[in-house]
Amino acid sequence: MSHNTFGHLFRVTTWGESHGPALGCVVDGCPPGIRFMAADIQRDLDRRKPGQSRFVTQRKEPDAVRILSGVIEEGDHLVTTGTPVAMQIDNVDQRSKDYGAIARQYRPGHADYAYDVKYGVRDHRGGGRSSARETAARVAAGALARLVVPGLVVRGALVSIGSKEIDRANWDWDFVGHADNPFFTPDAKSVPVFADYLDGVRKAGSSIGAVVEIVAEGVPAGLGAPIYGKLDSDIAANLMSINAVKGVEIGEGFNAARLSGEDNADEMRIGVDGKPVFLSNHAGGILGGISTGQAIVARFAVKPTSSILNPRRSIDSAGNEVDVVTTGRHDPCVGIRAVPIGEAMVACAVADHYLRHRGQTGERGS
Amino acid sequence: MSHNTFGHLFRVTTWGESHGPALGCVVDGCPPGIRFMAADIQRDLDRRKPGQSRFVTQRKEPDAVRILSGVIEEGDHLVTTGTPVAMQIDNVDQRSKDYGAIARQYRPGHADYAYDVKYGVRDHRGGGRSSARETAARVAAGALARLVVPGLVVRGALVSIGSKEIDRANWDWDFVGHADNPFFTPDAKSVPVFADYLDGVRKAGSSIGAVVEIVAEGVPAGLGAPIYGKLDSDIAANLMSINAVKGVEIGEGFNAARLSGEDNADEMRIGVDGKPVFLSNHAGGILGGISTGQAIVARFAVKPTSSILNPRRSIDSAGNEVDVVTTGRHDPCVGIRAVPIGEAMVACAVADHYLRHRGQTGERGS
Amino acid sequence: MSHNTFGHLFRVTTWGESHGPALGCVVDGCPPGIRFMAADIQRDLDRRKPGQSRFVTQRKEPDAVRILSGVIEEGDHLVTTGTPVAMQIDNVDQRSKDYGAIARQYRPGHADYAYDVKYGVRDHRGGGRSSARETAARVAAGALARLVVPGLVVRGALVSIGSKEIDRANWDWDFVGHADNPFFTPDAKSVPVFADYLDGVRKAGSSIGAVVEIVAEGVPAGLGAPIYGKLDSDIAANLMSINAVKGVEIGEGFNAARLSGEDNADEMRIGVDGKPVFLSNHAGGILGGISTGQAIVARFAVKPTSSILNPRRSIDSAGNEVDVVTTGRHDPCVGIRAVPIGEAMVACAVADHYLRHRGQTGERGS
Amino acid sequence: MSHNTFGHLFRVTTWGESHGPALGCVVDGCPPGIRFMAADIQRDLDRRKPGQSRFVTQRKEPDAVRILSGVIEEGDHLVTTGTPVAMQIDNVDQRSKDYGAIARQYRPGHADYAYDVKYGVRDHRGGGRSSARETAARVAAGALARLVVPGLVVRGALVSIGSKEIDRANWDWDFVGHADNPFFTPDAKSVPVFADYLDGVRKAGSSIGAVVEIVAEGVPAGLGAPIYGKLDSDIAANLMSINAVKGVEIGEGFNAARLSGEDNADEMRIGVDGKPVFLSNHAGGILGGISTGQAIVARFAVKPTSSILNPRRSIDSAGNEVDVVTTGRHDPCVGIRAVPIGEAMVACAVADHYLRHRGQTGERGS
Repeated sequence: MSHNTFGHLFRVTTWGESHGPALGCVVDGCPPGIRFMAADIQRDLDRRKPGQSRFVTQRKEPDAVRILSGVIEEGDHLVTTGTPVAMQIDNVDQRSKDYGAIARQYRPGHADYAYDVKYGVRDHRGGGRSSARETAARVAAGALARLVVPGLVVRGALVSIGSKEIDRANWDWDFVGHADNPFFTPDAKSVPVFADYLDGVRKAGSSIGAVVEIVAEGVPAGLGAPIYGKLDSDIAANLMSINAVKGVEIGEGFNAARLSGEDNADEMRIGVDGKPVFLSNHAGGILGGISTGQAIVARFAVKPTSSILNPRRSIDSAGNEVDVVTTGRHDPCVGIRAVPIGEAMVACAVADHYLRHRGQTGERGS
Repeated sequence: MSHNTFGHLFRVTTWGESHGPALGCVVDGCPPGIRFMAADIQRDLDRRKPGQSRFVTQRKEPDAVRILSGVIEEGDHLVTTGTPVAMQIDNVDQRSKDYGAIARQYRPGHADYAYDVKYGVRDHRGGGRSSARETAARVAAGALARLVVPGLVVRGALVSIGSKEIDRANWDWDFVGHADNPFFTPDAKSVPVFADYLDGVRKAGSSIGAVVEIVAEGVPAGLGAPIYGKLDSDIAANLMSINAVKGVEIGEGFNAARLSGEDNADEMRIGVDGKPVFLSNHAGGILGGISTGQAIVARFAVKPTSSILNPRRSIDSAGNEVDVVTTGRHDPCVGIRAVPIGEAMVACAVADHYLRHRGQTGERGS
Repeated sequence: MSHNTFGHLFRVTTWGESHGPALGCVVDGCPPGIRFMAADIQRDLDRRKPGQSRFVTQRKEPDAVRILSGVIEEGDHLVTTGTPVAMQIDNVDQRSKDYGAIARQYRPGHADYAYDVKYGVRDHRGGGRSSARETAARVAAGALARLVVPGLVVRGALVSIGSKEIDRANWDWDFVGHADNPFFTPDAKSVPVFADYLDGVRKAGSSIGAVVEIVAEGVPAGLGAPIYGKLDSDIAANLMSINAVKGVEIGEGFNAARLSGEDNADEMRIGVDGKPVFLSNHAGGILGGISTGQAIVARFAVKPTSSILNPRRSIDSAGNEVDVVTTGRHDPCVGIRAVPIGEAMVACAVADHYLRHRGQTGERGS
Repeated sequence: MSHNTFGHLFRVTTWGESHGPALGCVVDGCPPGIRFMAADIQRDLDRRKPGQSRFVTQRKEPDAVRILSGVIEEGDHLVTTGTPVAMQIDNVDQRSKDYGAIARQYRPGHADYAYDVKYGVRDHRGGGRSSARETAARVAAGALARLVVPGLVVRGALVSIGSKEIDRANWDWDFVGHADNPFFTPDAKSVPVFADYLDGVRKAGSSIGAVVEIVAEGVPAGLGAPIYGKLDSDIAANLMSINAVKGVEIGEGFNAARLSGEDNADEMRIGVDGKPVFLSNHAGGILGGISTGQAIVARFAVKPTSSILNPRRSIDSAGNEVDVVTTGRHDPCVGIRAVPIGEAMVACAVADHYLRHRGQTGERGS
């Protein structure tokens, strides 16, 4: 049991606060013999990095990862040795400021009050342990997780911001990582819509929520378990553990509650190659907790950033009623940078179940 | 790590198949000295029991629980001793029939195909381990979990079936358990609507999904943890582990994605008793993974029963294309009986975090 | 985390008290497709069963195991399905007697006092959860564990009782299970010596300790891990968890503290088959926490039975000073029946590490 | 499950190799509000540090600890916040040398062969992950563990080297840390004996084993659990996980196998203060897996250093027969520096069980 660890055979422990000297993760259980380059890790960190557009926080962090253990060098590459992989990211841009008042105020929507009740002591600087900076460590771990399962491809995209939704007819994975796309949207036409909308939100000193969709392809059938080791149960926990996430769904998700058994069934046939094929994917790639070999599709809802310029009523730790205004650098829509984080959390769940399945059955799924 | 266990300090392991001799659970970590009656457990089991209306499966199971360990008798009561509480429920109404064809067919929407790929061997009778009969064991464990946290009240209600939703203005908790309410709905006026609707579904040989809401009151502030031991993360995993669940949300849930920071903020004031009060509960009682002392509100979406009379195209284990018709006894809307199951899973999550919090901090929350 | 579970991928949870209706175990993670007969489990239980000679307790328990889940029948055989295997053993011979005085007395050498301090409530009948009857559940689990690792043979033998030791020159594994051998000794010549010695102990109303040795052959090289997942670390925990065990050693064990590096080194050569061979086995088959492919050799020390007829000074739960005399049925040397228990605990550790190794590396060891 | 983690509520994960840039640990679950100074951690590290006498390895490492997370500063002190405490120690004196030959040789007594079979890839430099340098991280974690349990004092001493034993009549805890005592011996008269003996061993290019005893005072009664959460079971696992340890015992340990029930019983009386007192401590402070409130006494056997100058026969990874001579810097008796390591491992076990007990029962023991 651990409050700062997830996964079982592919097991990730993270540590670090927003304004401490560094943050990091220890990945235990990574199989030996995986060849990769440090750049494979850095690439994902760069996608999550703050300061890359006017729509995200202006904190400047290089988020450069150092790999401190668990690998040996072979020329340009690193090879995992089966021992724990410790990765570390220094905090660089902890802006020194007077936290005097905010240190004692409970910011609505933040964990400040609950946190103080729980621990009685708190590193309030930048949200301390509750800061989304911690997610850099997840992204580093997820980059390693992607390498564990041969053929695995995990991609994510933003599908809505506030009331603005993408048009799925325009879905283009290649556009998600395009240089002119600050939103991880798969719909090129949504960019100006989102930009206008978010500029309005930002200038109003407000914030807005979003929905992110993650798709994992190349997941072999057979991962997961029927009861509490369900693959979707672990994906749900992993995604819900991301800061500001309030809902998770798989496949049809909440829409399944409105469907009939006929409409929700994914019928099967034998394909031209003699292998089973599904004719639809309402299940989102998981039935009875076990992967079917189809693409795994998960979505999660991100609430609006709680740090806003408009004053909200609250109290402070001394019991005074106060008005809270959160200045400083914040993402007007934290959902944007949640895309690579969601990918990482799904990749870690799949990698863990891949090893668990192999442990129990001796097989790698199929 | 275990595929059939959940929780850490309040830890539940279940076992059993639909058509085996019995099923059960072992609850490890239950605090010593809890006084209760076997009837306290049986009451919840009776609420989940099949065969109680025409809207649920007609399988007749008394679901009588036997408590085999972990307690001593004190007069009419039982008292927990701190050792594992083993509870067992015999399967009585395993109708003997020829499963010949269905045994080899992969029923769309069920785990049959994924299961066979995973294990290569399967107890197909009644769904085997994947049967919702397993949930009886969870309900027994949940009944014990309710007793762990002083003042805890966990209640659930059905809030929609297919396209039919309750009117929240009519919400009446007392009505949920009413004898004339076969739906666990909190809205008396919804009963005839749901009844007509479901009769139609049932007569059409079809099935339909539903949404269930669970509310936990009396949860002290301070339970949970900021990162992977988040209370909402564990609630999400617990609820997603229930058969047929495809989505989970906390508080505003997916709606939070459409809100502004101002609208989503739960403002605070000092109450007349000098204690902190929240002016709203968009968060559903959890901020940053930690309980705030407000009611915890979680919802989950249940897909339509996959066992339907209308034929669906599929394949069998020999690779033949077949049409599957699932006769036998099935719930046309499995969401109904999911209400006490959802309560149990939330109660177990809260009990576990109550003990975990007490372990780390020495406090019981406040 | 669980106080009543051990293992990770091959995971055993036990439950039950000495004088409750039954006891049992749930084995989670057993690979699917293992064919066996119920008699394979019963055979080991019969070896541990009480009442088989005058040197062990006269409690009469058939210890008949029922397998309630996790298997399907194929003719005479059972086949594991990959779901939890629940096994149950009824308690039959709970002699009803007045426990009035002893219920309140703290028997020296027993857990009574510590237990009361811990839980504040106690099922004192026959030692409750602390009774060695719980070990029947371990033996059942261990019988399944033996089947998980192809070629694994785990055997145990008693090597000393009090001051009497076997002559290792006479070691004969076949004799250990001989009908005329009530001691699990591998040295036929030790039988009359042990018998005379134990008769004296028994008639004096006393008890005596013993040392048991477990040898596991057919363990592939490569199981374990360098640091906290050491195979020897888990074997030590497993053996130390057996009632009355006070010491555990691997290979040379405590004698290694007296050896030089030269004498303790297991030199290697290339064998006639071209494979590596060790020229000795001081290490007991484990180096740096990882199996070498040699036989694993572990020993454990069992203290004398604390239940003796000769009065010992103690106190009761009311704070009175008392003299405790423990009548009833007891083993004068609990070390004897510890032999099959030790085998089971080593078999479980090896099976668990076999699956863990396969999970991380995809290999089965070699 | 984790191969590089131990403990449950007080949970320690370590990482790092002998010749990597650094090593460290993450302590998860440390209660909030513990005040300490970095010097409290450094003090224990300094006791384990190499290069402090001619009887230990001459590698020069400052072993300076940096605390990277989980604390806030209050003046000169640090205060834990309840979040993970990451501690890091840089490797400074990784002497660059040609490991060409030794890289491929399997050193007898080391894990080289088993390790290669397991992982297929190995950081051979200085033993990689199997190096005892990893134990610095344990000592740092143990220093924190000591602070978790009020009143806890954990001390260790060397009680024998090879055939030379201390005289227990001379036991003086104050002498263990004396500047003129390079052996952690509690018997001042043993210093010249050990020194002469070890000089002989060292000059002969050989090595020798040792026995270490750990005594934990101030452990409240009631920690542990009757079955697999036994306090002694976890202490055994923790101590057996230290490099080169081959045996562990509690209280009388292996000697208990030779005792009668009368001689092994720890009788009880009511003390002058009205509280229970034990008249002896054969049990080593643990009965039935639960602490009794007496001092916990554990011993472990450390095998001789496997790295010796005298050639041993072995093979290399290419299958050649070779003679191995291990030059370089090594402890002639690794048992000496194992003293603070053993203390740390016992302190961690006690801290973990203290929190676990508090979680389940709400009490802190008594």
